[in-house]
Amino acid sequence: MTPQNAADLLAALRVAAPLVHAVVAPVSAALVANTLLAAGAAPVLAEDLEEVRATGAAALLVNLGAPTPPRIAAMEAAAEAAARQGRPWVLDPVGVGAWPGRLALATRLLAHRPAAIKGNASEVLALAGEGAGGRGVDSTAVPQAALPAALALARRTGAVVAVTGAEDLVTDGEVVLAVANGTELLARVTAAGCAAGALAAAALAVAPGPASVAGALALFGLAAERAGARGPGSLVPGLLDALHGMRAEDAAAGVRIAARRA
Amino acid sequence: MTPQNAADLLAALRVAAPLVHAVVAPVSAALVANTLLAAGAAPVLAEDLEEVRATGAAALLVNLGAPTPPRIAAMEAAAEAAARQGRPWVLDPVGVGAWPGRLALATRLLAHRPAAIKGNASEVLALAGEGAGGRGVDSTAVPQAALPAALALARRTGAVVAVTGAEDLVTDGEVVLAVANGTELLARVTAAGCAAGALAAAALAVAPGPASVAGALALFGLAAERAGARGPGSLVPGLLDALHGMRAEDAAAGVRIAARRA
Amino acid sequence: MTPQNAADLLAALRVAAPLVHAVVAPVSAALVANTLLAAGAAPVLAEDLEEVRATGAAALLVNLGAPTPPRIAAMEAAAEAAARQGRPWVLDPVGVGAWPGRLALATRLLAHRPAAIKGNASEVLALAGEGAGGRGVDSTAVPQAALPAALALARRTGAVVAVTGAEDLVTDGEVVLAVANGTELLARVTAAGCAAGALAAAALAVAPGPASVAGALALFGLAAERAGARGPGSLVPGLLDALHGMRAEDAAAGVRIAARRA
Repeated sequence: MTPQNAADLLAALRVAAPLVHAVVAPVSAALVANTLLAAGAAPVLAEDLEEVRATGAAALLVNLGAPTPPRIAAMEAAAEAAARQGRPWVLDPVGVGAWPGRLALATRLLAHRPAAIKGNASEVLALAGEGAGGRGVDSTAVPQAALPAALALARRTGAVVAVTGAEDLVTDGEVVLAVANGTELLARVTAAGCAAGALAAAALAVAPGPASVAGALALFGLAAERAGARGPGSLVPGLLDALHGMRAEDAAAGVRIAARRA
Repeated sequence: MTPQNAADLLAALRVAAPLVHAVVAPVSAALVANTLLAAGAAPVLAEDLEEVRATGAAALLVNLGAPTPPRIAAMEAAAEAAARQGRPWVLDPVGVGAWPGRLALATRLLAHRPAAIKGNASEVLALAGEGAGGRGVDSTAVPQAALPAALALARRTGAVVAVTGAEDLVTDGEVVLAVANGTELLARVTAAGCAAGALAAAALAVAPGPASVAGALALFGLAAERAGARGPGSLVPGLLDALHGMRAEDAAAGVRIAARRA
Repeated sequence: MTPQNAADLLAALRVAAPLVHAVVAPVSAALVANTLLAAGAAPVLAEDLEEVRATGAAALLVNLGAPTPPRIAAMEAAAEAAARQGRPWVLDPVGVGAWPGRLALATRLLAHRPAAIKGNASEVLALAGEGAGGRGVDSTAVPQAALPAALALARRTGAVVAVTGAEDLVTDGEVVLAVANGTELLARVTAAGCAAGALAAAALAVAPGPASVAGALALFGLAAERAGARGPGSLVPGLLDALHGMRAEDAAAGVRIAARRA
């Protein structure tokens, strides 16, 4: 995806205004919803089992943060419904490197064929079967170290796999796109990764494939760069303002996505 | 209610500092609580069944966002207790146009005689029995289209009915008040409508009737106008600052409420 | 603790970057997590019973806000695990003065020997067995009135007891430290007290005792003073920015902790 394509993605999000169903932990809910709204999409956060099967959403995010039995049931019903109805969905396997129960859950969810998997290096390594790792929900490895695992996971599942970090790596098992947008401060904001995952789900509602996922991560990171933040507190309102106000030429000029050898 | 009355409402909120019990989804909890605090009221967010019956609150908000079985039980217990104890309560029938289960829940809750019902046009149309509608939690109709339904619902239930939108319409089945405050950016902030509903509950704790509900919606919208927002991110802190710092003369000068023919 | 020690605490938090497990209500989760991140620590918000026993966290916060049966079970399992594994944990007995069920829960949790108890005056009075009080989650007494109860509670439980208010009083039953940092606006921000409690847990992960708890409360209050807030809305991002950017000399110059006669 060239920078121009990220600008196109932004335009498509605003025109299509996709409704995105997000199953996320309470800590993430507001930032996830506000990120979708700032990008021109719309959130729906239903967790009731009947409701999750009838959201009318164009895409789905399943985020494993702080799972509880009712939310796990909602995740499974939502993923099953998305697969059956042919809607793209994104799996964010938060903490699967740190807790075996989450790894088992994420592995079960893979049966519903996510369109994309977005995790940090520890999470992607764990989900690819290459061992436990991570410190709580944080990674203890860098994205490059997880690239072979990401390629293997993408080929095995058919999903686009994004490994997030200082530089994000996005692959479908063939091409690899490196996204260099973002700021270090993002690591000091809870749920920033969850919000980027939600934007990836919105992007997949308007265009499939690794370029769309990479474009979403790039736009999110670029909004953080343009937030004018004095610290992690002002980063959140600044990022949302920047995402909402981003012009096509800002996106074209600021997005940094490069193809990389697999 | 003249502008002067909205200034009086603001003063009364600050003097009475009513404790408002809010049963809301996690995504809305922080903005709801912070809006109440910024206006001079105080929130209590209990969901435990014993606690909801003994909050000591002066008013109640029941918001149907993302319902789960335990929270539904809390809604019913809280509404029953409010009705029994003679405390005003506000029903925010989020998403009743989109999900039949929520419509059934809202209809059951009407038995506990809310003092006010605040929803968007799709929600009011659905609750009045005039058909499904809405896209997730968003409306697919304008307030004016729901005015006949609002009048009928108000007359049938005895509640003040507020239909929110670019212009809010508030009626008790006789008078109709049109509230013109607010900004388009509010639609890009999750839980903004929930927060306005909480402020309406606080207002009913200090004064009954449609003028009080309209005043609350006007003050909330005016705070959004005065937020100095650069986008939806800075709108939230700016709105809370503006609500907290609003002077009587700001309220008197800025509130735009007009009587309308029913 | 002299001001220089608070600067040392801040430095130690940034070096050790302790992982802090917080069991908190949804309304508090984001501010709690973001406060920990801004101070250099890291949050984990697990509530699943298997997960809470294996978080790898260095300290724990148990906050009684808006308890539900599953979260109560998580609180008990987390406190039991912390006690067994020798990790310090902080009990924030939110609302125990207002609801008998919360008082019974907090009393049960004391068996797991918290390293610190942080509450407002009504909460400390209730937990010390000196009667009900409070208005929802707010205090109806001043810290000084609860000092005898705090001393008795500290001696009985072996915990550091912090009574928060306009001035915070921190005691281990022998020494009493008075913390004068903070602003009135903090009372207009939901979950500010929860966030201060989380910072106290992080502090106890790097240094035990009343000076560490007082230092955490002082740093939190100082960040609020330095937030440059125009109201309660801008206080939140400003506080997080100030905490993240606070230099050792800012902490040394701004912290106001004084020993007080017990």
